[in-house]
Amino acid sequence: MFNYRLQIIVFFILISFNVYGQDDSDVHVIQQIHDEALLHGDAYQLLSELTSSCPGRIGGSENYRKAATFMKGALSKISGVKSSLQPCQANYWKRGDVENVYMTGKDEKLEPLDCTALGNSGSTPQEGIFAEIIEVHDLDTLEKLGVEGISGKIVFFNRPMDPTKTRTFSAYGGAVDQRVYGPARASKYGASAALVRSMTLRSDDNPHTGVTVFPDSIQPIPAIALSTNASDKLSKALKSGSVSAFVQFAAENLGLQESPTVIGEIKGSEHPEEIILVGGHLDSWDISPGAHDDGAGCVQSVEVLRILKAIGYKPKRTLRCVLFSNEENGLAGGKKYAEVSSAAHEFHLAAIESDAGGFSPRGFSMDADTSVFTRYYGRVNQWASLLEPYDLYFFKGGTGSDISPLKNQNGLLIGLRPDSQRYFDFHHTKIDTIDAVNPRELSLGAAAMASMVYLIDKYGL
Amino acid sequence: MFNYRLQIIVFFILISFNVYGQDDSDVHVIQQIHDEALLHGDAYQLLSELTSSCPGRIGGSENYRKAATFMKGALSKISGVKSSLQPCQANYWKRGDVENVYMTGKDEKLEPLDCTALGNSGSTPQEGIFAEIIEVHDLDTLEKLGVEGISGKIVFFNRPMDPTKTRTFSAYGGAVDQRVYGPARASKYGASAALVRSMTLRSDDNPHTGVTVFPDSIQPIPAIALSTNASDKLSKALKSGSVSAFVQFAAENLGLQESPTVIGEIKGSEHPEEIILVGGHLDSWDISPGAHDDGAGCVQSVEVLRILKAIGYKPKRTLRCVLFSNEENGLAGGKKYAEVSSAAHEFHLAAIESDAGGFSPRGFSMDADTSVFTRYYGRVNQWASLLEPYDLYFFKGGTGSDISPLKNQNGLLIGLRPDSQRYFDFHHTKIDTIDAVNPRELSLGAAAMASMVYLIDKYGL
Repeated sequence: MFNYRLQIIVFFILISFNVYGQDDSDVHVIQQIHDEALLHGDAYQLLSELTSSCPGRIGGSENYRKAATFMKGALSKISGVKSSLQPCQANYWKRGDVENVYMTGKDEKLEPLDCTALGNSGSTPQEGIFAEIIEVHDLDTLEKLGVEGISGKIVFFNRPMDPTKTRTFSAYGGAVDQRVYGPARASKYGASAALVRSMTLRSDDNPHTGVTVFPDSIQPIPAIALSTNASDKLSKALKSGSVSAFVQFAAENLGLQESPTVIGEIKGSEHPEEIILVGGHLDSWDISPGAHDDGAGCVQSVEVLRILKAIGYKPKRTLRCVLFSNEENGLAGGKKYAEVSSAAHEFHLAAIESDAGGFSPRGFSMDADTSVFTRYYGRVNQWASLLEPYDLYFFKGGTGSDISPLKNQNGLLIGLRPDSQRYFDFHHTKIDTIDAVNPRELSLGAAAMASMVYLIDKYGL
Repeated sequence: MFNYRLQIIVFFILISFNVYGQDDSDVHVIQQIHDEALLHGDAYQLLSELTSSCPGRIGGSENYRKAATFMKGALSKISGVKSSLQPCQANYWKRGDVENVYMTGKDEKLEPLDCTALGNSGSTPQEGIFAEIIEVHDLDTLEKLGVEGISGKIVFFNRPMDPTKTRTFSAYGGAVDQRVYGPARASKYGASAALVRSMTLRSDDNPHTGVTVFPDSIQPIPAIALSTNASDKLSKALKSGSVSAFVQFAAENLGLQESPTVIGEIKGSEHPEEIILVGGHLDSWDISPGAHDDGAGCVQSVEVLRILKAIGYKPKRTLRCVLFSNEENGLAGGKKYAEVSSAAHEFHLAAIESDAGGFSPRGFSMDADTSVFTRYYGRVNQWASLLEPYDLYFFKGGTGSDISPLKNQNGLLIGLRPDSQRYFDFHHTKIDTIDAVNPRELSLGAAAMASMVYLIDKYGL
């Protein structure tokens, strides 16, 4: 009886083996992918060119369109890849030349604070504004203070990211409401400006920009990020008495501007109707070279197609590299792409986004509609032993903003999950440069993505 | 029958659960450990002080002894820790001021090559030497060339580290024989000097020093590391014809010098006779501030005791922080420590070394005598689910040089395994500075070690 049972078990093991993988050739191909990435990788060189020739490529800007042309060119150099630009209109908010915040406390000296305006910030009158500062740590406090406590004042949002979150994206998620919604909420109660502590876990002098949202019904006010050191200095001054600030800032809103998404495609040989997407977003904040955010994800996605081509892999399914527009300030690229795709009745079997920096990959996070998630997750987990030798693991959780509108196609959404400790040191700042990227870490991320594409393409989901 | 079997299984699960862990309080304590490290961590500040006040602290040097006094002081600041210096004699090889390599090919121009001598290198005559270079890629080639092919020449060892090894210590292990044994082998055949390609995966201008070994029977010759860029330049020149080099170098061997190992101890309350060691090595190469190698491991080991004290944990077993002397050039500290320990009939239940850089921890590698390894590994694996939320995993493999002489006490040897991609960018160079260390990555390594110490102390092995 025991032997009989054993035979049944072996039979089922073999069945699942054949259908969903893996076999010995997978070990070999995944090694080939990594060898190609580490021996002949092109990602770092491409990122170096992108960040030096098109820094500050915010959606709608000239630098963005230059970057789109450049990356389309990079894709078209890979034999067999058909590259194109998908038209997309993005709202173009343009920073002016003047950015000043000076605080003044009981000693009446004006002290400059390291700052940079948030995207969509309103402007001050040319001569600036001068008002008293109140510090708050959460949005609900605004309701309590009301118009009486806020009107005419400058609201200073100063809740730090929680350093005890070992995965830093959780810390970011727990603090970023202040930046995204704080200024508009303050405006509602008549604040004259908003200052927001930079979203980073470092104590330093680098201000971090990022999106703030003013709904149509709310008057945009000047909304300015302070470096963490400047925030601490201001908070300390506030503890010993009333502090005011002089704020001066100018921006223009130039409305909708062309800001295309870049696409490179290899048609599948057996199931061309099933698409496997790899992507990142091509736009970066205007003050930043955008190396980790998200030049890294873009060059890795291009590299995935280059690697698979270089090792001679012939995909059964359609592989598509998509470099999205306007992730930072409206997600126009991701929304438009999903809209066009669904109108054409396309099906994305899987979409893999890299938008968490070019650091050492630690695995993949996954998301899908609840009706299919368990099935997909179970299947992907059968490949765990193929990826563990590369220190890659699977997690449940958020994936990527740009691919999120594809969720209703009922495919699997996947996020490359790199080590997150250093990401917010650089995020949305001028120091997000190529020097902050390690070539091997970047290449290993591309190899990890290419390995997943290979497995999904070979076995389906 | 099935139910009966199930009951047996459940019974054994419960048994092992109670004896070797885990329970809900472990989740809480491990969170406390991480919170303490990330909120009030002292490791980065301590490393900053160590690297700035005692750089180049090679065993036997004045700077080493200064570092030992400094770290003993740091340990004694933790309440309940008894700190001491364990006497140890280390051979002190001292670099001189002159370090020159110039190559000259068919154009007869002298071109400087970025270089630094290897530890234990012999000197040239004051006026230098001038000889023809031959390039080799492995030690066996020397046998083939023999005295006839080598005598009077400069042997250039130029096999690169293999970039396709995704764990970089494997790449190092596959190339470092050239540096450690190459110069002595070349000397045996009458070579006048040896040049060795730096042990790094980067293409840059930083020469990496490190130990080279001349047995008593072999005449030390000048043995010099070239940067990878210099190595590539030299190799390219050799491809187009004969190349000679002018080499000038001076060093002194100052013999045995006092070079104590630093120890901090908290006595166990229930099993004081079972020791759990955490450690790193305090010496660094003479040209290097030694931030990652291995200042990081030292400050993390001190931090383990500080964290456990700060959260109010009372160890049952004896916890010992050991900062070893002379790992880089002879392992005198590790050998002496094990000798003294075994003479006193001590038993190290576990020894955890951090000597792979202060990067994001990815888990622990483990080693033990084959008679006990399977048992230990099985027990430790029962804690896997406690550490996975911190992205920590267990591996089999090498642990740490300094603790290796303790293996015959039949305890478990453990190596903290951080992400290895950037380690050899800095290893044994002047750029291994505090700026190359991320405070959170460093702290998380300390928290990982403290978590392991806590579990081993609580449950035994």
